[in-house]
Parts: sequence; C-alpha cells; structure tokens
Amino acid sequence: MTIKVAVAGASGYAGGEILRLLLSHPAHESGELQIGALTANSTAGKLLGELMPHLPQLADRVVEETSPETLAGHDVVFLALPHGHSAEIGRQLGEEVLVIDCAADFRLTDEAAWGHYYGGEYAGSWPYGIPEMPGHREQIQGSKRVAVPGCFPTGATLALLPAVAEKLVQPDVTITSITGASGAGKKASVPLLGSEVMGSLKAYGTAGTHRHTPEISQNLSEFSEEKVTVSFTPVLAPLPRGILTTATAALQEGVTEEQARTTYEEFYQDEPFVYVLPAGQQPQTQNVLGSNMCHIQVEVDPFSHKLLVTSAIDNLTKGTGGAAVQCMNIALGLPETAGLPRAAVAP
Amino acid sequence: MTIKVAVAGASGYAGGEILRLLLSHPAHESGELQIGALTANSTAGKLLGELMPHLPQLADRVVEETSPETLAGHDVVFLALPHGHSAEIGRQLGEEVLVIDCAADFRLTDEAAWGHYYGGEYAGSWPYGIPEMPGHREQIQGSKRVAVPGCFPTGATLALLPAVAEKLVQPDVTITSITGASGAGKKASVPLLGSEVMGSLKAYGTAGTHRHTPEISQNLSEFSEEKVTVSFTPVLAPLPRGILTTATAALQEGVTEEQARTTYEEFYQDEPFVYVLPAGQQPQTQNVLGSNMCHIQVEVDPFSHKLLVTSAIDNLTKGTGGAAVQCMNIALGLPETAGLPRAAVAP
Amino acid sequence: MTIKVAVAGASGYAGGEILRLLLSHPAHESGELQIGALTANSTAGKLLGELMPHLPQLADRVVEETSPETLAGHDVVFLALPHGHSAEIGRQLGEEVLVIDCAADFRLTDEAAWGHYYGGEYAGSWPYGIPEMPGHREQIQGSKRVAVPGCFPTGATLALLPAVAEKLVQPDVTITSITGASGAGKKASVPLLGSEVMGSLKAYGTAGTHRHTPEISQNLSEFSEEKVTVSFTPVLAPLPRGILTTATAALQEGVTEEQARTTYEEFYQDEPFVYVLPAGQQPQTQNVLGSNMCHIQVEVDPFSHKLLVTSAIDNLTKGTGGAAVQCMNIALGLPETAGLPRAAVAP
Amino acid sequence: MTIKVAVAGASGYAGGEILRLLLSHPAHESGELQIGALTANSTAGKLLGELMPHLPQLADRVVEETSPETLAGHDVVFLALPHGHSAEIGRQLGEEVLVIDCAADFRLTDEAAWGHYYGGEYAGSWPYGIPEMPGHREQIQGSKRVAVPGCFPTGATLALLPAVAEKLVQPDVTITSITGASGAGKKASVPLLGSEVMGSLKAYGTAGTHRHTPEISQNLSEFSEEKVTVSFTPVLAPLPRGILTTATAALQEGVTEEQARTTYEEFYQDEPFVYVLPAGQQPQTQNVLGSNMCHIQVEVDPFSHKLLVTSAIDNLTKGTGGAAVQCMNIALGLPETAGLPRAAVAP
Repeated sequence: MTIKVAVAGASGYAGGEILRLLLSHPAHESGELQIGALTANSTAGKLLGELMPHLPQLADRVVEETSPETLAGHDVVFLALPHGHSAEIGRQLGEEVLVIDCAADFRLTDEAAWGHYYGGEYAGSWPYGIPEMPGHREQIQGSKRVAVPGCFPTGATLALLPAVAEKLVQPDVTITSITGASGAGKKASVPLLGSEVMGSLKAYGTAGTHRHTPEISQNLSEFSEEKVTVSFTPVLAPLPRGILTTATAALQEGVTEEQARTTYEEFYQDEPFVYVLPAGQQPQTQNVLGSNMCHIQVEVDPFSHKLLVTSAIDNLTKGTGGAAVQCMNIALGLPETAGLPRAAVAP
Repeated sequence: MTIKVAVAGASGYAGGEILRLLLSHPAHESGELQIGALTANSTAGKLLGELMPHLPQLADRVVEETSPETLAGHDVVFLALPHGHSAEIGRQLGEEVLVIDCAADFRLTDEAAWGHYYGGEYAGSWPYGIPEMPGHREQIQGSKRVAVPGCFPTGATLALLPAVAEKLVQPDVTITSITGASGAGKKASVPLLGSEVMGSLKAYGTAGTHRHTPEISQNLSEFSEEKVTVSFTPVLAPLPRGILTTATAALQEGVTEEQARTTYEEFYQDEPFVYVLPAGQQPQTQNVLGSNMCHIQVEVDPFSHKLLVTSAIDNLTKGTGGAAVQCMNIALGLPETAGLPRAAVAP
Repeated sequence: MTIKVAVAGASGYAGGEILRLLLSHPAHESGELQIGALTANSTAGKLLGELMPHLPQLADRVVEETSPETLAGHDVVFLALPHGHSAEIGRQLGEEVLVIDCAADFRLTDEAAWGHYYGGEYAGSWPYGIPEMPGHREQIQGSKRVAVPGCFPTGATLALLPAVAEKLVQPDVTITSITGASGAGKKASVPLLGSEVMGSLKAYGTAGTHRHTPEISQNLSEFSEEKVTVSFTPVLAPLPRGILTTATAALQEGVTEEQARTTYEEFYQDEPFVYVLPAGQQPQTQNVLGSNMCHIQVEVDPFSHKLLVTSAIDNLTKGTGGAAVQCMNIALGLPETAGLPRAAVAP
Repeated sequence: MTIKVAVAGASGYAGGEILRLLLSHPAHESGELQIGALTANSTAGKLLGELMPHLPQLADRVVEETSPETLAGHDVVFLALPHGHSAEIGRQLGEEVLVIDCAADFRLTDEAAWGHYYGGEYAGSWPYGIPEMPGHREQIQGSKRVAVPGCFPTGATLALLPAVAEKLVQPDVTITSITGASGAGKKASVPLLGSEVMGSLKAYGTAGTHRHTPEISQNLSEFSEEKVTVSFTPVLAPLPRGILTTATAALQEGVTEEQARTTYEEFYQDEPFVYVLPAGQQPQTQNVLGSNMCHIQVEVDPFSHKLLVTSAIDNLTKGTGGAAVQCMNIALGLPETAGLPRAAVAP
C-alpha cells in the first residue's frame, strides 16, 4: 500500500512542521508514505529550498498553486491554510480522501460562536482532533475529516480537562497562556518583528476577544454539566516556539492536592503524549520543543483555595503539526505515535 | 548641602541599577549628591569596573566590605543585600541616616506571614515604598527608613489597587506575572543559565509558595474592607528585564468598562510614573525598559464577567532601583521625578 | 535662547531614539530646547503615543507629514528617513538650519562608490559625524550640515582607527560585525520576524555587498597612506540592540600587545564616549545598551601575528541617535556629552 | 544481535543530546540497540527525570556513578565528561568496547599543542571523528576508539576544508564563530546566566587562547602542504544552540566564485550531512536546529580578494552528540545516517 500525502500551505509554519514530521515518519522511511504535492498561494512557483531551507530533502520540490487539481490524487491532504480558506477546498476534495484541516474552519460546533469570532459563512464542524479527549480518538478513527485544534485550546484543554470532567473545580476558569511568536504565522508584520518581540512581553486578544476562547469553552463544556466560563489571556513572549499555560479555578469543596494529582495521573495514564510531571517539577516549554508532548503539573493553592494547573506544549508540534500527524496516524490505522518525537530538543 | 550616598550590595543587579540612576541624577550632575562607599561581600576588594563595566564612570572604584564602618558617614544608605541581611545592618546605622532597604526584611506588617514565608526573626516593618498607594508618599516624606517593595508586588499592586480600593471587583484576585531573569539576581545557578532560560517558559514559586504573595495581599487588603485573597503565579520568561502582570477578578455587579477606565485614569491622574494606556493599547515590557514607569491597561471581559488588568514594569527600575531612588527623592525633599527616566529604551 | 528641534522620521527606530535622548537632555529639561514638529510619511496623522508608547511625554503629539513646510521654523532638523529621501528635503531647508542626516545620502565622498552601492543621483557629502576621528569634531563645529555615520561603520571605525592611523597593522582588515535586529529598521518583513530571528544567526550583505563597506574603507583610508582594503561580514543575531565588531589585520613587523594597548589608550584618552577596557575584559553589547559609549579591547594574537580588536556599541545610540545628538551638541556649542548616557542599562 | 550502550556524563548537555538521538534511532526502536547505564558524578543517585525532563522515556532511570564498574558490560560507551576525565576512564574500558569520547582528551596529535592548551599528561590521539574529512570515515570504520571533534572545529573545518585542500586560498585563515550558550555546558556560572547572555554579545577566548584553535589548525593542515595559520575568535550570542562561522582567507591568484562553488559542491556531493546552499542563500542556525546538518555558503569578495565561507551547525548535534552517533553508526557498520535528522526544528 502506498499513502500519498499532499500539504496545502506548505510554505507556512504549520505546513513546514507537518513536513518535518513526515520526513522522519517510519512509513516515509519505508517508502510506504510518499510526500506528493506541496502547494501554497503567494509562494507558488518557488523551490521549497528557498522557503524552507531546514528541509534539505525537499529542497528541489517546486511549490504548486493550491487548487483542487493540484491536490487531487492524494490519499491524505493536510490543509495548513489561513482561516477561512479550508472550507471551500475541503468541499472539493473527494470523500475518500483523508482531509486534515489545521485552520479553525471546522472546529466550532456552535454557529453563533463562529459568527461572533470568525464571521462569514459557517461551514459546520468535523471530528475534533484532540485524541486525549474521551471519545475523540474513536471519532477520528472512523472519519475522513479531522479538524486539528488551535494551539492555545490544546494546551488549555489538556491542562483543565481532568479537573472539569472529574469535578475538581467550579466551571469558571482563568487561563493565561504565554506563547512563542511562531503561533502568529509567517506573515510580514511590524508588531511581530524581532525588534518588537525580543526583550518584550505583551498580552493581546484580551478580555474574551481571542478566537480560541470559544474553542476552549466548547472543549471543557463537553465534559461538564454546566457551560464552562473561560477567562483567557494570551501573552506574546520572546521565544520562537512553545506555549506555557497557567490555569486556575476555584476548588470544589474538600478537594485535596493528592486527589487532584491522582485524578490527573489516572486520566492520562494511557496517553503517550501527556506527561504529568512528578510533584515539585514545573513544565518548561524547552522540555517539549519539537516534540509532540504536553507536560502538566497540578497543584492546590491552600491560601486561595484554587487549583493551579500548568501545561507546556510546542505550539507547532502538539499544538498544530504534530497533532495533525497524530490524527493522520489514528485515521489511517497506523501506530498513533509513529513519527512523533516524545523527546525534546533541549536545551 | 552635600548628600553622600552609599550603596551596600553594589555588585548585584539592584545595586547596579541604583548606581546607574544616581549617575544621571541631576543632583549628582550638579555635584550636590556624591556617590560614596560601594560595598559588597564576596566581591569586596575588586574594582567596580570588573564587576559592572556598564558604569564606566565608576570603573576605578574599589568595592569595600559591607559593614557599619564602611557605611558610616553617609547621609543615605541603600541596602541592596540578600533577604535577611538588612535587619542587622539597618539597626547599626544611625537614626539620622536615610536607610532605603531593597530586601524583604521590613516589608511585611504581619509577623505570622513573615514567619511562614521567610522564617527567622521578624524585624518589624518600615514605611512601604510604593508612593502611589494613598498615604504612603506622606509616610515616606517623614521617614528615615523605607522598605522598597518587591518587584512582583509593585506590578500587581499598581494593576489592582484602583479596582480593589474603588470596589470594582470582588476581593479575590488571580495574578500571573511573567518576569525577566534579572529578578532572580546575579548568583550562579544552573536553572538560570542562559541555555535553560532562552527559548523557554516556566512557572515557579507556584500555588501560594512565592514570597511575594503575602506582600501583594497586604497591599491590596490595606484598601479593602475584607482581606484580599490572592492567587499568584510567577513565570520566568526569556528576557533580561521586565514584568508583565495579567490580573483578573470577578466584577462587582454592574461595573462597566467605561467606569473601570475612568476609575483607573482618575486614580492615577497625578502620578508621574503610572501611565494608563489609551483603550486598545496593551502594556509591553519593552516600552518601560530602563524607565521608572508602570504602564497599565484595564478591560472588562463581558463573557466571563471579570475585570482584566495588565501592567508592565522594568523589574530593576520601577520594580527595585528606580523605586528606591524615587523614595530617596521623596524622603530628602528632592523633586520626586529627579533622575528617573519616563522614556524607555525601546525597541 | 530657544532651540526648536524637529524630527523627520519620528516613528522609526532612529527617530524614536533621538526623541528618547532629547527628552532627558538638560537643555530640554531647562526648557531651552523644545521638541517641535514630529513628522513621518506612512504614519502621519496618528498620535505618537500609538506608535511610540515608550515615550509617554509625547503621547499626545500628532505626527505630521514630512515636508519642507512642516519642518520649517526649526533651528535643528534631524532627518531619520530611509536612504535616498534626505537629499531632496535637505536641499529645501534653509542654510541657517542645522540639519543632521541619519541616512546614507551625504556620507560618501566618492561618487563612484555611491553609484555602485546606492545608485541614483549623487548628492555630495557633508561633514561626517564621528567626532572621534581626528579633525571631524572641528568640521562639525563649523557646520550647519552633518552626515551621521552608519551603525556598522561607527563600531568598525572606532575599533580600527588607531591601528590604521598609527600603523600597527597592514592596510587590509577583516571585520565581522554582529548586530541586533533594530538595525534593519521598523519595516514589516518575513526574514525579520521574531520567529525567524530568535534562536538564529545569519550573515547577510556578504562578500563586499553591504552598503556600509565603502564607508568603513573611506573612514580608515582617510588616515592611511594606502587605501585600506576591507572584508566586511555583517551577521544578524537575536537581540534588539547592539553591535559587536571583531576586527583583525596582519600586524606590522614587531608590534607588541603593550604598544598596541598604549596606542589605543592614548588615541582615545580624551574621548568621553570611548572606553578602552582594561586588559582581560571583553566588550559586551549589554554594557553599552542605551548608552552612547563604544567599548573597545585590543589584543595581539601571537600565533597568527594579527591584531584583534573588538568593539561594542548600541546601534541605535552611538550607532545612530546618540551620534546625532552628540553632533547637535557640538554644532550648537552645547557640552558635547549633554543628554548622552555613559552608563548602560545592564543586565 | 543486541548493542548495549552506556552514556557517561548523561546529565550534561552532550549526554542529553546523545540520549535524545539514541531514543529515536531505528536500532533502538527495533530493540536492537539498548540504552544501558547512565552515569554522572555530581548528579549520581538522582532520577534522570529530574535532570532531563525532556526525555520522558527515561524519566525513571537512576543515574549511577561514573566508574569502570558501572560502564562495564556495554558494547558502546559514550564519554561526555569534562575535559581531562576521559583518558583514565578510557584506559580502563576493554579493547573490544567501542568508546566514543566527546571531550578533547584524544583529539590533538601534537603533544606540545596539548601541553600549551590543556596542560597535564598527554594521552595520545584517537581516530578523529569528522567523517567528512577525507580518509577519516575509513579510520573510524576500523576503530574501537573515536575522538569526537569540538563544536567550533566542526563548523570551521567543514567551512574551510575544500578551500584549503583544493588550494583556493592561502594557508592563513581568519575565523569568527558565533555560538549559542549551550556550548559552555551545564555548569552554574555568573557570566552564563540568562541575564548576562540575553540581549548581549561578547567575544571570549580571543587572540589564539581558545582551546579549539590548535584543533582547527590541525584539521586544515592535514590537507595542506604548509601549516595553516588560524586566527580564531569565538563570540557568545543569545541563543541556546547553534554556531555560525564566518571564515575568510586571501584567494589564490585567479580563483573565481564559480570555481569555488564547484569545488565545494563536488567536495561534499556524497556527504549526507553537508548542504552547500544554492547561491544567494545564507546558512542560518535555525535551519539546522536539532539536525545533524552543516549548511555552507561560499563566495568570493571581489573587493578584498578574499574567499568568504559561512557555515551553520547545531553545536550539540553535528557539533557533539550527532557527530558521536554518526561515528557510532560508522564504527558499528550501521547505516551512517540512522537516527540522525536532516530536517531541522525551524522556526
């Protein structure tokens, strides 16, 4: 069997990360998985080597225009396009093709939330690609369509899901997620210049305005009797990759740190990509760099009676490209961990 | 009149920052203020130029041993020593000497909190050096002893004080403060190596364990009918200087963003070092680098019914050395803003 | 007397740095120097506070269109415009106005070099603003026009001038200058995104193609019998500000390290902004951050028989804005060091 | 067949990198290669998970004391110890064991150079592990002992070897190599604190004093009729990993850029880990992060008549741990590229 894979949006950060992971995927090394069309819009016609010199194996590939034609004839198509471009392309790809969308187009199940945060026509929702959410792995297994989650929702959901699902906390959570700059993509922009980002810290998309807010709420509410209220503050920090999430919520009466820790360890005990750290160790983004892991710590603050959970992911790996490959593995029936590093590039 | 100033702990980051500011203080340029003894412990005997090449004007000064003798004969003594060393030295300095302590020794008014967080003998408390807290400027004016606040408490207190004092929020606040590495001081340490800090983010002193937690609570509670509960999570980020604080609290019924903004603008309207940014602009640590400013933004999150306040300071300037010089100016009757930059070194 | 100063290009990095320095200039604090028109092109009409929140004192100023009209009526005009825009504006400003140009337009004395590196019409040359070059301070004193040097030429010229002028080395020098990102200006650009710059190092403008190459050669050759051959390699590094220059050249027969050190110390002994470090200390860009200093070290490599000189400057201060203010001070007969920090913002 | 591998110095950066690579080595994934003893000195007795949380697969391993006993019974022993500790341990390991030393102990063939730069007893030299140096791959194939090169010598040798061996340049080279902080190892140290490194650039080990200088000269001289004179200046820059080398040398009469490019492309045409970039692209350390690649660009500067070569490596991968694994692969007869990424973690 041969699996032919195309990547639309191959010259962006998400596309590049998918390619990096596919290149060392055992199915690629055995020749079973082949990297087919690499497409983009503004960079079509260029050599990938000019755009992505970190992938020397693909340096001679020519980037093609993103279109149903160039994407035809593949078994798997990754869409790593700007928000709003996946819906139409997605519709034009055959039902037998596995389509994995890294944009927001098919993430939200609530049309009103879509309208408020994204506007434009609502395209519906696809099976949502956090396999660690109970039931989701199974949905992905049977599907030819997967919506890869946003990077912030991945870090926040994995941090808070056990607490919400197991009723450790009240359904009102406060999240500050600090991110590296690559989350903003590879677009020329003054506020994202190195000179503006290095040596600086800045919140943005504050007070409920960031588009990942309803996605976090959707994920947590799926496992809660009441809709979970989310206060979400993203902060841009001077590093290329990584998201550190700090999340707090008022404890349900009587919950102890030991209970909380046990709940987390049990919740994730079979998950290959979630590592609940031993007591006393804090997640550090460096320790997940380039890996598909989420490191988590859970504590009880006895003074404020709050649960504190911290999590670290690489926004481009577990937060995007790694999650996309993990979903591909599940949907194709390959070993879920194939091609996905658990060891990180530290320091 | 001549003001002779000594700095104890001159080879650390706080000491260096005090010296940087004193060197461009108009009273120094006019000759009125003289920089006298520079003392330290482990570095005594060395030239300051070896330790602090960024202060070429003082390169030929020899660092002396910190002792009552070397500090004698000065009108002002800045203590920039590790926690626990100021109390004894402070006691041995004459009552006529203005002593400004940058350590924690005299910050807490609650002996039990001191015991829990610092241990050892409680030394009492001195007038607390956030002049922007109502009544504190007046206390400093009449005092020969000032306790300079911690860097995190400065950013968090200035962010939340109007909200608490004017009852915009309930007395239960959640704070994540992201800091540059210099806050940890100039001590050899593996976790603070450049290799460990760059490209990484990590929470520490979590779940109520950070020593600045009771100080924040003390400051806010001073202006609240009820003791203010504080959930405080500090995060280490890859930049040398700067603290960005994100603070949320549940709104009191009916408070609007307009009210909140007006409250903040009025609260700080006469403060030279607090800048409530126009709506739509977020504080950025780069924009306060090397300055004594605190930039603040205040918003209402309509979905979570929380107030979000963000603040940015330079932890070594407004967070330590600048606050120390500001307090010196007040206590000596000099213009409060003398020698303290309002413009920052950006980008 | 009142000195009215305009800054054209006020929303760029060079313009912002000039304003930062002017705001703490003693002549500004005394009211003698007034900051008049702030002009720009694409940002005209905006509040400076939106563009430069690090200068809160000027937050309410409206940026005007750059034109002879908006710049009229000032005693001093700083031109901080992109290369090629100063010539025309410069011509339209009255001869009695002190015009200080931060662009390349009037730096090169060789029309052929201009044509090769910049193209377009050659505008001639103005007195060149490195006052530390023998004779240049005097030229600036008598002039209403000054060309501020490029940032790389400043670091390289100060590093090599004594060696070339005093014949310590052969007239063939090899320079690698490593720079922070702000040298590239405040223009949206993918290769200058934080994601591309952080965690990375890259040479650019290599093999004689960088426009600062002829300027370095011009400066050194002015003090050499033979034209000095320059191999110049700039490297972009992940920091906002700072240039570290490493420069080597074959020693003239018999030159010792002691001679070299003495030559440098004597050459710069009266220069307030050049600090020849004691033996054993290396310049570090952090130690000149935000200051107008150039730190220098000079050594002899006994194995390769080469002189090694290293220098550190802040590219926006001594490398641009500080040099511009220093030249203004000289040209106006103010104290040369007024408003120019010698102490740096370290760490 | 089972290959049992021990790592001495497992808690340092080089040891951690070797482990990261071994964990994703196909021979490890197939069970053929087993990770045995992990040893260290000061950290013996701790769990590896506390020291290296980025390697979750090995979190439960206990670090043992480095000794002949703990290292006995392995087929391969990687020594990632401080300089001067390998010689004795190396002697005590059986001749049938493949010993790969990452320290300097067995790199230099010249006893006098050893004495000058390292002092202490000279231990002799082992086959030198840059397989890209003609003849070296063959030496490694037949050997049970390999000396892994220093990180700077790797970047500099690969940059200059074709030029020297093919007589493009005169045997007198000038090298500036800019490095991330991890090259200095995981030792507590004030000058390597994040606060000192971030936002700063500093040369060190200047003027022929850096220990890698004779190693570079040895490598280049091996392929030159005359001993190659090396001027080498290392610079510390604010990034965790990566070395960018800029190297210049006077051209031999008549050498053109086209000739130089062809020479380089042919020299490295069969090398899997050297990528001579297309004309117009510069090596960037980000593009080799975590990979075993060396990216190279070669140019002729027509003004200074010099060859300019730039190279980028990850100091911990191709510069240390990757080279060590590459040498293991060669010595064991495994595919040379097994387990060694060619794609990098960018951005």
